[in-house]
This record gives sequence, C-alpha cells and structure tokens, in this order.
Amino acid sequence: MSAFVTLSLSAGLAALLLHRAYTTGRLRHVIASLGGSVAYIEPYTGKTYPLDKPRWSGDDKPGEQPIPLMLTALPGITRRQIDKTKRSLWRCPHFKLEWNNPTCSFKDRGTTVMLSLLRQQGITHVLEDSSGNGGASVSCYAAAGGLHATIMAPDSTSPAKTVQMKAHGATVELIPGSRQATSDAAVAAHGRDGGRLFYASHAWHPFFLHGTKTLAYELWEDLGFRAPDNVVIPSGGGSNILGCDLGFSELQRAGEIQKLPRLFCAQPLLCSPLASGILQALGETDGHSPPAEWNVPNKTMAEGTSISRPVRLQECIDAVVRSKGGAIRVTEAEMAQATFDLAQCGLYTEPTCAQAAAAYRTLIARGVIKADETTVIVLTSTGVKATPGIATLLETR
Amino acid sequence: MSAFVTLSLSAGLAALLLHRAYTTGRLRHVIASLGGSVAYIEPYTGKTYPLDKPRWSGDDKPGEQPIPLMLTALPGITRRQIDKTKRSLWRCPHFKLEWNNPTCSFKDRGTTVMLSLLRQQGITHVLEDSSGNGGASVSCYAAAGGLHATIMAPDSTSPAKTVQMKAHGATVELIPGSRQATSDAAVAAHGRDGGRLFYASHAWHPFFLHGTKTLAYELWEDLGFRAPDNVVIPSGGGSNILGCDLGFSELQRAGEIQKLPRLFCAQPLLCSPLASGILQALGETDGHSPPAEWNVPNKTMAEGTSISRPVRLQECIDAVVRSKGGAIRVTEAEMAQATFDLAQCGLYTEPTCAQAAAAYRTLIARGVIKADETTVIVLTSTGVKATPGIATLLETR
Repeated sequence: MSAFVTLSLSAGLAALLLHRAYTTGRLRHVIASLGGSVAYIEPYTGKTYPLDKPRWSGDDKPGEQPIPLMLTALPGITRRQIDKTKRSLWRCPHFKLEWNNPTCSFKDRGTTVMLSLLRQQGITHVLEDSSGNGGASVSCYAAAGGLHATIMAPDSTSPAKTVQMKAHGATVELIPGSRQATSDAAVAAHGRDGGRLFYASHAWHPFFLHGTKTLAYELWEDLGFRAPDNVVIPSGGGSNILGCDLGFSELQRAGEIQKLPRLFCAQPLLCSPLASGILQALGETDGHSPPAEWNVPNKTMAEGTSISRPVRLQECIDAVVRSKGGAIRVTEAEMAQATFDLAQCGLYTEPTCAQAAAAYRTLIARGVIKADETTVIVLTSTGVKATPGIATLLETR
Repeated sequence: MSAFVTLSLSAGLAALLLHRAYTTGRLRHVIASLGGSVAYIEPYTGKTYPLDKPRWSGDDKPGEQPIPLMLTALPGITRRQIDKTKRSLWRCPHFKLEWNNPTCSFKDRGTTVMLSLLRQQGITHVLEDSSGNGGASVSCYAAAGGLHATIMAPDSTSPAKTVQMKAHGATVELIPGSRQATSDAAVAAHGRDGGRLFYASHAWHPFFLHGTKTLAYELWEDLGFRAPDNVVIPSGGGSNILGCDLGFSELQRAGEIQKLPRLFCAQPLLCSPLASGILQALGETDGHSPPAEWNVPNKTMAEGTSISRPVRLQECIDAVVRSKGGAIRVTEAEMAQATFDLAQCGLYTEPTCAQAAAAYRTLIARGVIKADETTVIVLTSTGVKATPGIATLLETR
C-alpha cells in the first residue's frame, strides 16, 4: 500500500511550517546568521542602510521618487544545510490543512485513488453527484487522466460552483429538487449511455475511502510515527471518519501504533444524522433538541456537511464508538464564531470546516479532551471556496 | 539562511506527486500489492466480490437499497516502507503549483519573511496596497502574528475580493481612481496614525523578495539539487523574477549550481512594461505593436499582472538579460486558450498564471526552448480565486 501513502505525504505540512516559523520568531536566528556585513542597499547607487531600523525605501530626496531597496549579496546555502527530516506541527491543537491538495480540498485524496483504479479497469466515462468540492475534484482528476466526467448537481446550485467543473471539461447536469433527488438521479444513471457511464461516487466507492485513509498515515508520519490522541473531524458523509478508522486500524495491525486515536465527529446541529446517531449509540445527551430536528435540508451554513442521509451511517457510528470517541452538534452561532476565530489566527476556512474547531472548544470545556493531549483538528477546505457565505457572515456580524 | 528555505520546502510538491502517480498508472503496483486475498466486501453481511470487475455497490436486490462496499482488511504498512527522500516531477515541462501555500498563492513566501522581520523590529501596524492575492496574504500573516493590517484597494475592487481580508480582521480602505492612485495613497500613508503605520509593501520591501527567492531553492531541491534550464514566470511587479534571480545567484555563489537558469518573463500584451522593456534591451521584436500600447490600465483578464508602473522595472530587465532569458507578450486569446488547456490537464489556474503556459508554447514553437530541456512553468495561484473571470471566459467560448 505504500504508493497510496507516498501519493500525498506532506500535503498541508508546508503551511504549518510557514505559520510556525512565523509565530515562533525563528527569524531571529536568520537575522543573526546574516552577520554584520549585510545591509539594505540602493542597487544602482550602492548606498547602504543598516538592517536594524525598519524601512521600506531609500531616504526621501526632495522632488525625487523614493528608491526601492535590496539586500547586499548573501553567501547562499549548500545542500548540507537542507534538513529533510525535521518536521514540526503546532501544539495544542494541531491543525491539518487539507486545502493543500490540488483542488484545494481533502476530496483529492479519495478521488485520485478511485479514478486511478477505474481507469485501470477500463472505465472511460465517470459520473459523480456533488455541488461542491467532490464535483470539482472528480472533474479535475478525470481531466488529468483522460476520462470524461459527468457531474450531477441540484438545479439550485450557484453557477459559480459549476465553473471549475466546466473549465475542466466536465458535463454538468442540473437536477430539479433536493440534494437527495440528485443522488437518486445519479444512482439511476449508472450504466447510462450504452452502459459506459460508471457511477464514481465519493460516497459509495470503497477505493475513495482508501484514498482518504492517507490522512491517517500522514498524521502518523507528521507526528514522528505516532498516532495523535484525538482527531476532530467535520463530517458530512463521513469519509474522513472512515478514512481515519481504516488508516489507523491498518497501522495498529502492522504494529506501528498501540491504540487507535479517539475520533470525534463534528456536525451542524441543523443536519446531524451521524452525530445524533453516535450520541444515541453512546447513550449521551448534549442539551439540544432531539435528532429529528436535523432532517431539515439546506438550512445550515455548513453546506459541505449538509447530507441528511449518509450512505454509510452505521459504519461511521461504529467507527467512532470503537475508537472511544464522540460527537458534537454545533450551532450556527458557534460555527460563525469559530470561522472568525480561526481567520484571526491566520487560518481561513469554510464554516463547514470551522465547526471542528468549535467542537474542539466544547470538548475542552467539558473535559472530554485535555489540553495536554495531542489533538488534530482537520480543516477540510479553504475559505476561498466559500466567499459568498463568509461575506454574509461578515455583514450580519 | 536555512530557515528561509525550510520555511516552505516541499510546498507544491504533494500536488505534483498526486498528479504524477495518477497519470503514470502507479496504482497497477498497488493493486498487485494487495494480493489475491483482498476483495470488495459488504461490511455487515460479509459477502465479497472480486476486485477486478468495476462496481460501485453490492448486487441489486429487488425492492431493497443497494449496499455500500468496503475492502477486506489490509495489513497496513510500516515506517520502513515510507520513502522520505524520493521526489519526482512531471517532465517536459514541470509545473510549479504555487497555490499550495496557506492563502493559495505565491505571495505567502514573501509575506511570511517580510512580516516576521517587521514584527521583530517592533512594528505593530502594517499597510499594504493590493486588491488581490497580496492583500489576502498580508491580512492572513498579520493576523497569525498579532499585527494589525490596513489594506488599501481601488474603490472598483469587487467586494468578494475584500472578504478574506476582512475575515482576517484587516481594515480595508477603498481609494478612488486607478490602481496607481491606490499605490500613491499607500506611499503617502506610511507613518500615519501617529507614526505607527508601516508601509509593508510586497513591491517595495527587500525582505519580501528574500521570501520569494525560496521558489528558487525549492526548485533546486525538487530537481535533486540541480537548477532547471529555464523558468517561465507570469510577471506583474516582477517579484518572482527577482526572487529567482536572488535564489539562483546565491546557489551559484555557494557553488551548488554552475550556471543560472534562463528566466523568461510572460506578460499580457495589454500591460507589458517588463516584457516590453526586456525585448527592447535585447533588441528583439515579437510582431506586436510597440510598447506604448500596454499603458492601458485594467483591460487584460490577467488582473494579477496588470501593473503599469512596476517599482523595480530596471532590476527585472537586468535580471532577465543577465540570465540570457527573454520575454513573451501574451494575447488575451492565447491566455484564454491556455487556461482551458491547463484545466483539461487537471490544472485549474487563474488566467494570470496560464499566460506562462501560453508563453512556453510560443518559446517551444520558436525554438528558443527545446523540449528536452528542463523547464519549469510557475503557476502562481489557483483558478478558485478567479471564478468570475473564468465564468466569463466559459460564456464567450
């Protein structure tokens, strides 16, 4: 299985290093290493200025434009100075930035594995139902692999969301009615077009999950070949719950880790079939109204997790219970607050992902997770993909 | 200088590995490694199906829902199977995906270094002028580092572009008039607010360029500690030209590479002060109208490179000439075509970046670049950031 893993090792890591180096002031050492001989310089006059005073240009001269500065020549570094082994993550908690995948969401992990398999099996036309990240990912990888993609989406889908699919050459079919009606139409269309249209569904295909499991392998490697104590996962269909369950179980089977991390499912209170099912299975209550309430489609701002009938509901519940984890149902207000709290730490995410940070806060407050445990919060996609939703949040703030 | 380099080593690499593994059919080996004992399985009935036939669910049973499949349990992998050293890139040409940075554009390389320095120098309030990726990046890193950011943008800037800045807590000031008027306002505002507002400009600050130079170091490492023969760069203010010039010059100085790669500047014909200046310096013509034409603001779809008066014009011209490189002025039609050609290879970029692929095509056609040379095409940002522009291209296609 090593190819599955090497596929996406270190995705997301560079971002954390950038942030971490920034926030720990590592540049102090850099400035020291520059030595006393380095200075700001006006490149064409040769005039220099010391580094220790902040300045953005050369000195003003009356009636002239200011001059842009450079640094005097540095010695360069050699390959022996490249540290290829050391990796670090933020502590308490660790954020896993899944937008560092080619189409800027975690879906690519599953799509690349699923479509690679299908192509080798001779499939030429793939069908996916999604109005968001899944459709973008399948369109992209289908194009990369020379397959034709058809994406079905509810007819209420904003045109902006279908732009990426069409640019990749996918055929977009808009289906009247609910999100569920689109799923039903996709199931019915499997085998269409003279038998060649294959339902390559991120919700259904097991090889999709064997792509998302690379998240577990990658966290294990990021943490120095250790499993975290807890993983908090924003959940819709549950493919990251099942991916983590698969990956960490395999690592346990291979003798690489001793116990499974606890998996925590974060879902919007307004649409929380998985979280409600988990609470029920654990015999827990959370002070919110009973589960029936979530069956209101399309009301939560967490669109990416607004899936009222997950295909693998029971498997997800079992995986979380087996891990001794739990579930948090997140209110819209908590989600909005978490979106801005993350942004003000430099992490710009969809509200869909920010609910995991909100859930973490609740888990800490309740003492379910301790601050000194190693906890990973999975941020599945970037806020860049949710501009209209975040604009609305800003207006009503 | 090693901290500058380790900051963002391997950003962009995972994406290429994903694509490459996908397109080279590496999964053939994966399937082989699964062995004969692995099969699809219905998790709760235990019924299995062979892997070699494509299927998306268990067998239909009349009147029942289909059952989602899993795979039978896999053995897991050990840390000895993790190859931490091997890296590969596409051949002919190599694409460098700069959207694998925290805010999804190359600007983060420069911002993290510039703001880290300023914070250590005691700056608390930073000012940037930008309507796009630069403003998003400064807002994000200012938030991460606890600085307050003010971003000036032309009053014609679409609200969608300021959403990310505001979410990060930045103050956005809209300036009447042209893009140049905004720059002039920013220069004038340095030192405002009782002297504490510092002009932290991606165009002006030399430490910004010492961040963008990590692109050169990273390419050198990606290619097995070799420099490419050519780098084709979509250029606005020229910070990637100067970053490559700095980084590769330092590597040459350190004895790590023998000669500088040739740097090629791609700019939109409608706004090409750098490219026109380079052609003039080289005494070359390209069949297009004379340079004066580019001084029409805001007409090209390549908004990110629509900078009519680059701060470091002469330095950029000198760097390209010194590298024995050149310049290509790209028409709007070539840019649109390249955007879709890239998307149909699985690379979704802003038209601003796609112009580098268009320039590469021209350089190959003219024999300036040979197909067997190692050429890197820098893709500076993702198409996800340019949805409205790409939607317009799709409509008029």
